[in-house]
Amino acid sequence: MPFTYDLLIANGIILAAPGLQPPIHEGYLAIRGDTILAVGAMANLPSQTTARQTIDARGGLVMPGLVNGHCHAAMTLFRGLADDLPLMDWLERHIFPAEARFVTREMVYWCSKLAAAEMILSGTTTVADSYFFEEAAARAFHEAGMRAVVAQGVIDFPAPGVPDPGKNIEAAATVIERCRGVERITPAIFCHSPYTCGAKTLAGAKALAQAEGCKFFIHLAETQDEIKQIREQHGVSPVQYLDQLHLLDQDTVAIHCVHLTAQDISILRERDTGVITCPESNMKLASGIAPAPAMLTAGIRLGLGTDGCASNNDLDLFAEMDSLAKLHKVASQDPTTMPAKQTLRLATSGGAEVLGLSGIIGRLAPGLKADCIILDLNAPHLTPFHNHDLLVYAAKGSDVKTTIIDGALVMDERRILAFDLAETMARVRELAAALR
Amino acid sequence: MPFTYDLLIANGIILAAPGLQPPIHEGYLAIRGDTILAVGAMANLPSQTTARQTIDARGGLVMPGLVNGHCHAAMTLFRGLADDLPLMDWLERHIFPAEARFVTREMVYWCSKLAAAEMILSGTTTVADSYFFEEAAARAFHEAGMRAVVAQGVIDFPAPGVPDPGKNIEAAATVIERCRGVERITPAIFCHSPYTCGAKTLAGAKALAQAEGCKFFIHLAETQDEIKQIREQHGVSPVQYLDQLHLLDQDTVAIHCVHLTAQDISILRERDTGVITCPESNMKLASGIAPAPAMLTAGIRLGLGTDGCASNNDLDLFAEMDSLAKLHKVASQDPTTMPAKQTLRLATSGGAEVLGLSGIIGRLAPGLKADCIILDLNAPHLTPFHNHDLLVYAAKGSDVKTTIIDGALVMDERRILAFDLAETMARVRELAAALR
Repeated sequence: MPFTYDLLIANGIILAAPGLQPPIHEGYLAIRGDTILAVGAMANLPSQTTARQTIDARGGLVMPGLVNGHCHAAMTLFRGLADDLPLMDWLERHIFPAEARFVTREMVYWCSKLAAAEMILSGTTTVADSYFFEEAAARAFHEAGMRAVVAQGVIDFPAPGVPDPGKNIEAAATVIERCRGVERITPAIFCHSPYTCGAKTLAGAKALAQAEGCKFFIHLAETQDEIKQIREQHGVSPVQYLDQLHLLDQDTVAIHCVHLTAQDISILRERDTGVITCPESNMKLASGIAPAPAMLTAGIRLGLGTDGCASNNDLDLFAEMDSLAKLHKVASQDPTTMPAKQTLRLATSGGAEVLGLSGIIGRLAPGLKADCIILDLNAPHLTPFHNHDLLVYAAKGSDVKTTIIDGALVMDERRILAFDLAETMARVRELAAALR
Repeated sequence: MPFTYDLLIANGIILAAPGLQPPIHEGYLAIRGDTILAVGAMANLPSQTTARQTIDARGGLVMPGLVNGHCHAAMTLFRGLADDLPLMDWLERHIFPAEARFVTREMVYWCSKLAAAEMILSGTTTVADSYFFEEAAARAFHEAGMRAVVAQGVIDFPAPGVPDPGKNIEAAATVIERCRGVERITPAIFCHSPYTCGAKTLAGAKALAQAEGCKFFIHLAETQDEIKQIREQHGVSPVQYLDQLHLLDQDTVAIHCVHLTAQDISILRERDTGVITCPESNMKLASGIAPAPAMLTAGIRLGLGTDGCASNNDLDLFAEMDSLAKLHKVASQDPTTMPAKQTLRLATSGGAEVLGLSGIIGRLAPGLKADCIILDLNAPHLTPFHNHDLLVYAAKGSDVKTTIIDGALVMDERRILAFDLAETMARVRELAAALR
């Protein structure tokens, strides 16, 4: 008799659609190839079921892998290089010079691979990455077994790999072409911001994204300085400015959106532009508190991101969920704001919707890709487990015991399986030593 | 030849006084019995040194164990029982009824022991605990190998173990007597708050604390409701009210202090009253943001606490440090506020000073108790390790590989050594099942 499934995860608590459906208390998840075939209660598992491999998830919780909606993965190299500094000092005296000197194709490959390991170990299965040399990032994510949207950076300054800013869109087109068809990789474009890209560049990049059917990412309304600068130059808010340029639509992803007017929120909603909020980065750089609850009330599609390691300084979405939920409670003076279930939704199906992957990932359902994580609940800090809200308020990235992407085990028992992590760490340490 | 030391920790990065001194990059820590005898660079370790046991801390960082300045350890039972609710609903419809029915001596013992495991596993070596049946908590901490200040709860309502509030101070005296002389345990008194304890109770409890040479803990200025109520009843702020009652001195520890006037800060400074800030609890319950930077500027002794699991929902001081540092940056709109080094100081020697233990713990120095933790830095999220500020912004409680208290290994390789954790978890799960 042939096997029914390639992989059967049995006896776990199954949280198939975080924040949308209650968990199945003793359930299973059945996978063939890279695809989920069935999810249900153990009681309903046909008795003649067979599987090539079975994972006993008793005492564990199975949920969709987390979706990191915004990252600069290669910036792991700059982790902790410059903390607790004024924003402009941090950016202009530390980060920009370090990037100008040390960002190479090889650096992006190794440092993105390190980022992939960190994300896989803390439960993230999909990342939207925005940086330079993104074909090298794509290779790193692909080899790590991760799913990624890789958005090539476009900026009106000489940039790593793109010394002539006049060729920044051409360079992005090349990256898109190189990343097409790479398994689990979706190419995209990332314009750095409305204050570092001129109108012509913004329009050109968006036109390319449209022609290629790609997402268009952009940092937007992140700081008060940006609001001031765009108002001085264009007389409107950054959101209004992009709207006037016809850049806002359902395939644009606006990152941060910290400083929004009520009108900005209406515009984002009307254009169906997705937003990624990065609370820890906004806190650490003192950028401000994004009006995430108001965006959700307005019906804006919202996901969660870690941002890069120069401003966070890790890529752990479990910690990010905890920060998001707690920050908005204290900011609104209302403990019912940003409840755990909503937070879990943002970090899974919410992010998938923003990235245009909602028919592919973000939930555990038949026909979707088999991207899931298993948490070990047998730990003091998760005992007792009255409620899966603890996934936000007590669980840690380190509680993820197993990570499965596209039906393949990429991490098990806290060990990276898809590549040689020790080699990657050694290579990044060499690059870091040169930096000091 | 006799052994020079009982335990030698060699080859690690030694951060002997977090936030006060730079680390020793390749150093050692030498222990005899429960006491630190020497700390220094490996280059200066005498060649004839011998030790009964040597730990090779290469690739690791050795620092003082963290000091949790405020906890209700037994409330682990209520972890995740009631989240995302309005404060009064949470307290009056969930927490108070659960406490009235389920807090017993046995519950406090097992649930405090679970809390001890969680804290030891996340790098905390000393806790100031405030609850009922504190002699049972003392026994749990003692058996877990932890150091603890155990403060018996005093409140003007019938309370667990103290059905007659008229006997609450007498009951506290009994607990103090029973805990005297228990190794690593320091007894104390915890008046719940100025709004749940009358003036007579507050005065009586403070008199007992003074007579016994104990610390006097109290929740203070936690919520706007409290401020309003005390103002209505007494015409002054909660801090002024306690000052009028002569309750504020260097042996009083004020917990929370979220809502303070400039005058309140002056009073706390003048009386040399220590404060414990609990940012995650204050965020989750939407109580507000304590003016921790202003308190530090004023010269108030300040430590860090997790609060109990009903309002956080874990006891992880690494996460708490990260929240403290990031919250105050965004609240002040200044990324230089609450830098990592200051945060590390609060979680170690800062807390020790508030608890009256600064000559005993909080730093690694000859003559102090050997309470230390070793973090494994060989992890993707700590690579590269440009700066030990990463202890705040990227390290996790789960990076603690070894915990040593009073010179004894209580946790090694993520395993609790001092007691049977599985038994404790099973007992707490039984108690939790009864609760549902």
